[in-house]
Amino acid sequence: MAPPSSDQPADAAEAAQAGAISKVLVVIAMQTEALPLVTKFRLVEAATEESIFPKGAPWTRFHGDYKGLHIDLVWPGKDPILGVDSVGTVSAALVTYASIQLLKPDLIINAGTAGGFKAKGAGIGDVYLASDVAFHDRRIPIPVFDSYGIGARKTFATLNIVKQLNLKVGKLSTGDSLDMSPHDESAILSNDATVKDMEGAAVAYVAEMFSTPAIFVKAVTDIVDGEKPTAEEFLQNLISVTMALDQVA
Amino acid sequence: MAPPSSDQPADAAEAAQAGAISKVLVVIAMQTEALPLVTKFRLVEAATEESIFPKGAPWTRFHGDYKGLHIDLVWPGKDPILGVDSVGTVSAALVTYASIQLLKPDLIINAGTAGGFKAKGAGIGDVYLASDVAFHDRRIPIPVFDSYGIGARKTFATLNIVKQLNLKVGKLSTGDSLDMSPHDESAILSNDATVKDMEGAAVAYVAEMFSTPAIFVKAVTDIVDGEKPTAEEFLQNLISVTMALDQVA
Repeated sequence: MAPPSSDQPADAAEAAQAGAISKVLVVIAMQTEALPLVTKFRLVEAATEESIFPKGAPWTRFHGDYKGLHIDLVWPGKDPILGVDSVGTVSAALVTYASIQLLKPDLIINAGTAGGFKAKGAGIGDVYLASDVAFHDRRIPIPVFDSYGIGARKTFATLNIVKQLNLKVGKLSTGDSLDMSPHDESAILSNDATVKDMEGAAVAYVAEMFSTPAIFVKAVTDIVDGEKPTAEEFLQNLISVTMALDQVA
Repeated sequence: MAPPSSDQPADAAEAAQAGAISKVLVVIAMQTEALPLVTKFRLVEAATEESIFPKGAPWTRFHGDYKGLHIDLVWPGKDPILGVDSVGTVSAALVTYASIQLLKPDLIINAGTAGGFKAKGAGIGDVYLASDVAFHDRRIPIPVFDSYGIGARKTFATLNIVKQLNLKVGKLSTGDSLDMSPHDESAILSNDATVKDMEGAAVAYVAEMFSTPAIFVKAVTDIVDGEKPTAEEFLQNLISVTMALDQVA
């Protein structure tokens, strides 16, 4: 997909300093990833009577003011039958869509954990800001549909954030599986990705639809091209790496 | 995922006859699939000033009355940059969500084309009603998360529709790729699927979230376990098979 015009690169930090950004929507996939940020930003959970989401949706919202910004932090919540976090592209797209419509944020921050590729320089606990996002599990081998499936997008330019927080920068590739099949791997290589998650490109798709700037901050919980199985390493590192994400915030 | 309780099986046709269903939402992925139904039901396109969807969303709606039912037919529209139909789970979930909130349908019909497995008895042009839906490309090898990823659901019981329209019945498996990787194939076999599409399980997920009954009518455009590449066979048969879908309606 053609990247958005970059004739006039915007900068989230500069815009925030200039007062252009007053409402930030933080979209997170898992409760474990969200809670340290809730504490850090001193957010409070929206009471049932304050709920902005329709009855039936398990989506959860915390909100509060922090350093002059109003922050809404949402996550797709627990699956009502299975009790696990509603991870993946469909849930993330839905809660992002509903939150954009109901909260009209000036900026979206999709924060969370990711797999990293050591061949591209990633290590456990590294925090990346994504320069680009794309999907790696939407293969549609028909001309033009192929580009739609990959859904490659440049993210909102954030040079000052990178400098101020000393983040690493790399491309992010998104898919609905925690593991990586050979087909996924080939697409991830083609996407030139350093980090791999399960939500980013879907959040970017919805954000672009409504012209809302979005940035992607991903902390590495497991090395995809390493020796340990992803699921095991992911669970071992989820808590400690989530703390790294907290320290960047 | 545990199927919903089937102690009191509902039946869409009976419910419609009893007057319980007056508003039907038809969710379709591609314009080519939608237009024969628009003609069949004599639907008219919602004018720009009637648009119920937020500015920025490419989603399209046709509506009208047919045999005592009010029908809204939606599809995710053309990608604004690439110009192709916005196929796949994310777009389908979003337009289904927005339509449920804005139109409050009594029944959702997700209609469209699908790949069929000849090993399970499917042939080109066959029209299936899905008894079950599941995903085949959301592999999350952590206990319970694995079931969430597969997202298996029983569909709304529609025995009368099957009898009246002489449809075939089979399980539907959904993924965001038109082709089928070995990992997909293994998951599709595990899902015991006869037909394979790119939207159904996502529509089912959203419908269940808001307790809206949903049925899935899928016409076979290509044989996945046949000799021709799926993309080629799909394009060759899309028009003629869409006509088969029209004749069932």
